Amino acid sequence: MTLPVLTAHAERARAALPAAVHEFMASGAGDEVTLAESAAAWSSFRLLPRVLRDVGVVDLTTELLGDAFASPVGIAPAGYAGLVRDEAEVAVADGARRSGSLYVVSTRASRPLEEVAAAVGGPWWFQVYMMRDRGLTRGLVERAVAAGARALVLTGDTPVVGIKRRVGAARIDIPDDSFLVNLARHLSPGDALAPRAAAEQDPTATLDAIGWLRELSVLPVLVKGVLRPDDAAACLDAGAAGVVVSNHGGRQLDRSLPAALALAGVVDAAAGRGPVLVDGGVRSGLDALVALALGAQGVLVGRPVVWGLAADGADGVAAALAAVRDDLAHVMALAGASTPADLDRSLVVPPPGSR
Amino acid sequence: MTLPVLTAHAERARAALPAAVHEFMASGAGDEVTLAESAAAWSSFRLLPRVLRDVGVVDLTTELLGDAFASPVGIAPAGYAGLVRDEAEVAVADGARRSGSLYVVSTRASRPLEEVAAAVGGPWWFQVYMMRDRGLTRGLVERAVAAGARALVLTGDTPVVGIKRRVGAARIDIPDDSFLVNLARHLSPGDALAPRAAAEQDPTATLDAIGWLRELSVLPVLVKGVLRPDDAAACLDAGAAGVVVSNHGGRQLDRSLPAALALAGVVDAAAGRGPVLVDGGVRSGLDALVALALGAQGVLVGRPVVWGLAADGADGVAAALAAVRDDLAHVMALAGASTPADLDRSLVVPPPGSR
Amino acid sequence: MTLPVLTAHAERARAALPAAVHEFMASGAGDEVTLAESAAAWSSFRLLPRVLRDVGVVDLTTELLGDAFASPVGIAPAGYAGLVRDEAEVAVADGARRSGSLYVVSTRASRPLEEVAAAVGGPWWFQVYMMRDRGLTRGLVERAVAAGARALVLTGDTPVVGIKRRVGAARIDIPDDSFLVNLARHLSPGDALAPRAAAEQDPTATLDAIGWLRELSVLPVLVKGVLRPDDAAACLDAGAAGVVVSNHGGRQLDRSLPAALALAGVVDAAAGRGPVLVDGGVRSGLDALVALALGAQGVLVGRPVVWGLAADGADGVAAALAAVRDDLAHVMALAGASTPADLDRSLVVPPPGSR
Amino acid sequence: MTLPVLTAHAERARAALPAAVHEFMASGAGDEVTLAESAAAWSSFRLLPRVLRDVGVVDLTTELLGDAFASPVGIAPAGYAGLVRDEAEVAVADGARRSGSLYVVSTRASRPLEEVAAAVGGPWWFQVYMMRDRGLTRGLVERAVAAGARALVLTGDTPVVGIKRRVGAARIDIPDDSFLVNLARHLSPGDALAPRAAAEQDPTATLDAIGWLRELSVLPVLVKGVLRPDDAAACLDAGAAGVVVSNHGGRQLDRSLPAALALAGVVDAAAGRGPVLVDGGVRSGLDALVALALGAQGVLVGRPVVWGLAADGADGVAAALAAVRDDLAHVMALAGASTPADLDRSLVVPPPGSR
Repeated sequence: MTLPVLTAHAERARAALPAAVHEFMASGAGDEVTLAESAAAWSSFRLLPRVLRDVGVVDLTTELLGDAFASPVGIAPAGYAGLVRDEAEVAVADGARRSGSLYVVSTRASRPLEEVAAAVGGPWWFQVYMMRDRGLTRGLVERAVAAGARALVLTGDTPVVGIKRRVGAARIDIPDDSFLVNLARHLSPGDALAPRAAAEQDPTATLDAIGWLRELSVLPVLVKGVLRPDDAAACLDAGAAGVVVSNHGGRQLDRSLPAALALAGVVDAAAGRGPVLVDGGVRSGLDALVALALGAQGVLVGRPVVWGLAADGADGVAAALAAVRDDLAHVMALAGASTPADLDRSLVVPPPGSR
Repeated sequence: MTLPVLTAHAERARAALPAAVHEFMASGAGDEVTLAESAAAWSSFRLLPRVLRDVGVVDLTTELLGDAFASPVGIAPAGYAGLVRDEAEVAVADGARRSGSLYVVSTRASRPLEEVAAAVGGPWWFQVYMMRDRGLTRGLVERAVAAGARALVLTGDTPVVGIKRRVGAARIDIPDDSFLVNLARHLSPGDALAPRAAAEQDPTATLDAIGWLRELSVLPVLVKGVLRPDDAAACLDAGAAGVVVSNHGGRQLDRSLPAALALAGVVDAAAGRGPVLVDGGVRSGLDALVALALGAQGVLVGRPVVWGLAADGADGVAAALAAVRDDLAHVMALAGASTPADLDRSLVVPPPGSR
Repeated sequence: MTLPVLTAHAERARAALPAAVHEFMASGAGDEVTLAESAAAWSSFRLLPRVLRDVGVVDLTTELLGDAFASPVGIAPAGYAGLVRDEAEVAVADGARRSGSLYVVSTRASRPLEEVAAAVGGPWWFQVYMMRDRGLTRGLVERAVAAGARALVLTGDTPVVGIKRRVGAARIDIPDDSFLVNLARHLSPGDALAPRAAAEQDPTATLDAIGWLRELSVLPVLVKGVLRPDDAAACLDAGAAGVVVSNHGGRQLDRSLPAALALAGVVDAAAGRGPVLVDGGVRSGLDALVALALGAQGVLVGRPVVWGLAADGADGVAAALAAVRDDLAHVMALAGASTPADLDRSLVVPPPGSR
Repeated sequence: MTLPVLTAHAERARAALPAAVHEFMASGAGDEVTLAESAAAWSSFRLLPRVLRDVGVVDLTTELLGDAFASPVGIAPAGYAGLVRDEAEVAVADGARRSGSLYVVSTRASRPLEEVAAAVGGPWWFQVYMMRDRGLTRGLVERAVAAGARALVLTGDTPVVGIKRRVGAARIDIPDDSFLVNLARHLSPGDALAPRAAAEQDPTATLDAIGWLRELSVLPVLVKGVLRPDDAAACLDAGAAGVVVSNHGGRQLDRSLPAALALAGVVDAAAGRGPVLVDGGVRSGLDALVALALGAQGVLVGRPVVWGLAADGADGVAAALAAVRDDLAHVMALAGASTPADLDRSLVVPPPGSR
């Protein structure tokens, strides 16, 4: 299921990282049902390749919201990369640049956004939480806009934080400077909340946040964490430019439907009104091929990038992205597809009994 | 699947209780297929949470037959709590009071009903068997009414007692005083049956018992053990105020359909004519969320309360109920629901191939 | 899945019998997929019991082709019981008599039919193979008629003998006297075939055999081994009085559909034109309940009788039959059924994904 | 699942062959999901045999494209048999001759085609790759025609070569003389490519290759590797005489649908316009029976022939083919079928939940 280079990175990351950091990055919510199923669900589809198609050249070029990327494989937002390696998001950005990948930078980045943006050297997106301190949210978004973000990705599945039971005893403390590197200067002075509480996700946020962010940033806003067709439609109706099908790496509501099984319904509901991206458990080109065949326009990888970062810094990130991308090109050729547009649902057979 | 505090209670109960008592409480009928599947079935549903809903306040307040409870999580009837701990049902009642939970007191209670009722200090329901000695049944029901029971729960799935093979050699003897504490004084003097035989369930009882109990008690009567849509309708037609979907903790007919899989059909057949509650294998807030999303108005837990009682008395009962309730509130927030009314079937995906 | 007394018999039989005999009796064809699935398939159904039905008396009396039996649980034909115990079919017949069960005596019986018939002391059926020596077949059938058989059961699934790979090295030799005890005197004198070859099943036999046997015996003829709806109809059209759904104890075509999964289709195709019985893997009253609920009028057990015979002779046979019968009565009460007629398909939920 | 003689051959082959050669022959692409499922999928069908049919003679004679073969069981193309045994394809051909089986000789044969053809002594087919050097392809095809090939089988599922991760370290080098034995003399003199590159499959080949080969050879052209109904129709529209449902022994696109599950759709799409053959994981007569019942006219076996060759040369090949053929005849009798034409879809029940 997992490409060898990703497995090697993961093993080296486990060996290299402090146990508590590894657990924090690796763990999922509850019984980790969704964490385990997220990857397995991609593997549960069977393929119906085409024969005798000209696949002399496989072209992965992908346009997303007007920007071109070298492939549909991008980087999912992941917080606190500074726990993993000092270069943190700057190294990730460097890996993204080398492979021409979309990078969705986290609100919980450990390095200043401007440095990250400079390292990407091309289009990137910014992931947003609606925080309790709305002034802080505004300040951070304005700064991301100024730093050149091309879109906002509003995470919608985290009104409260999922309980990761595995972490328990080994709970890590995110150091203040890491936590607040991008936040401190935007805290509302009059806010009664302590800095960390002010930066917490606001559980009262609603679909109205989409319009608020759009107006504030004049950027396209995608909503991340969408698993339901009706939510996809509601987000687009509320002004979203697209959605990201995701269960937050299995870290929020355990037993949620794996993204692989939710994707087709969301694509149908989006009905071409905006791009649908997906993350969660993609560990090979075959996984990515299934996602694209089901209708995703982009596929984001999360933990493989974290493990690549831990194992080899920017080199590891670039290697992880290249591995998925090259495998995707290879299996597309075997499936008779020379571009992502050649991938459609007739290529995939859903698992037995799925709905 | 099971919340950590419940697992801890269960382990401590196993260590603390005499083996025969533990087996008696833990075991199921036949090959324990239904016992095992009861819990697993809740976990087999997948969830489709909503994003960007205001879940700043999650309110679990639940009204059942005109009484308000702090949450939809209540206590299923379980006989012979005196085997587990001397305070028995009085301690359970205390736990129910502390957590504002519905408590369905068993006909086989080991402590006088009046003491139990006093410890609850609020609304409670009384579980009834139609016993061979109909006068005994009548006397006991009248006493429950006098003690303040707000509804009767007629157990319909126990015309004879299921065979628990696991118990076999270690068969326990229920001491007479425990068995008869609430029954002795109501035995019909002229009855030819020995006291225990007189108190056995009457296998000839029919749906007519519903009307008989209703007339006798002037209380709402719910039927417990209903798995079939047509039975739900027949019970309501016969005057029942509601039903409890249950397979008696896997202790009666082995291989019965788990309550989780029977629930939706019963809810549909009840068609709002009365509340549908459910028990069997609920071990977490996620399990309870599935039950509520499928249409249950209340969710009862059985063995977790017994193990909590064994481990820590009233504290253990209150802790067990609080654990399920708090987990429910947490996962409701993650699912975008601020009240039980926000939970509907669109939130759950039944297991592959289920009918 | 298997009742404790049956398990105990099976273990004692394994210890008591020569290994080659045990293998011969226990083994199935090919990879023993059908052997294993035959029992498991009954367990794969889930039950929807009825509540509050009068089950004060459970009456198992069963009428089959005009004769009354104490229960619907009968004895499937099994060859060469003499390998297991000297009393052989006479002891089995004694067990059948004691429990009032239908006994289908095998063409390959090791004891003279007349002795077996005397031991039954009531109605019994005779299992027939169309043998290569048609005169031998005729002679044997006429003798069974004379001995009082009330019906013939023509085995239709054995045109050639399935290959039991497990037996291999330990292949047993059926002693001539055992093999031919009922056959020798009927061998056609002018037949070029050696006695054993003459007694082999004739692979050219067709549905015409039904009419031939009926005319010859003036008895009702049932066809055993039917798994297909169209075959059931064809047999009845050809004059059969009923069918027995069976895969020959998993000893013929491996990977055939288990009887439990084939039964409903055959019952529908038979459309009440004659009784449908079933055998294969029934090891408990729950299994029998499923069979009856799916529409079988009788349920035959094979190996449990062989193991009972091996363990305790007639006592073991009677105990095995009583165990299944008593368990059936018990679970019928739990399911709210007081007679087999109360069992219908609404009581069973087929396994997920079955067709 | 696998016939004992095939298992024995496989074990002896593993012991006899250099590890790298064994890995090369045994391995599949990616995670070997398709490799494992190819065999398992045949076993996942259940059978509905017919009773009381005349199966005194089972006749396996099979006509394919005008030529008669002794059975529908033939030999799939497999490259580089010279790695396994010096006699290589000549021994395989001898085995084919002895059993009257169709042999599809590989483009990557290690022995001169003329010798192979002579050893077959009857009709055979030639497997073709469209190679980068089109002149080489033309020369080789013309030579196969001259050597008496009766049909061409164009492999369509190998535009690039699947990645066999298991081989990795133990990668074998195919010796030049083995690789090029049939190719060297046909290399285009002016081609800029090195010999091996010239002989690589051309990833730009399309359905037009069918017409090109047909015109060139004046032979019927079948396309191998077809899993999709629409591809089957497209191939036939482009002039193909038939198709071979195959996933290349699990060596190309991992997670492709097993041939057993793709077969029925392709048969329906072919609609009788040409024969449909199938390979992949057939290891017994039962597997072959399922294939024929689903509509295949021929069934090819690959690795069992390779292991038979490794274990015993031509004797092993003949024994492997005889084992499958004899088992097929046996289970056909048990299923009530005396010729392949008696096998239809009503004999098979697809696995639960399959589409």
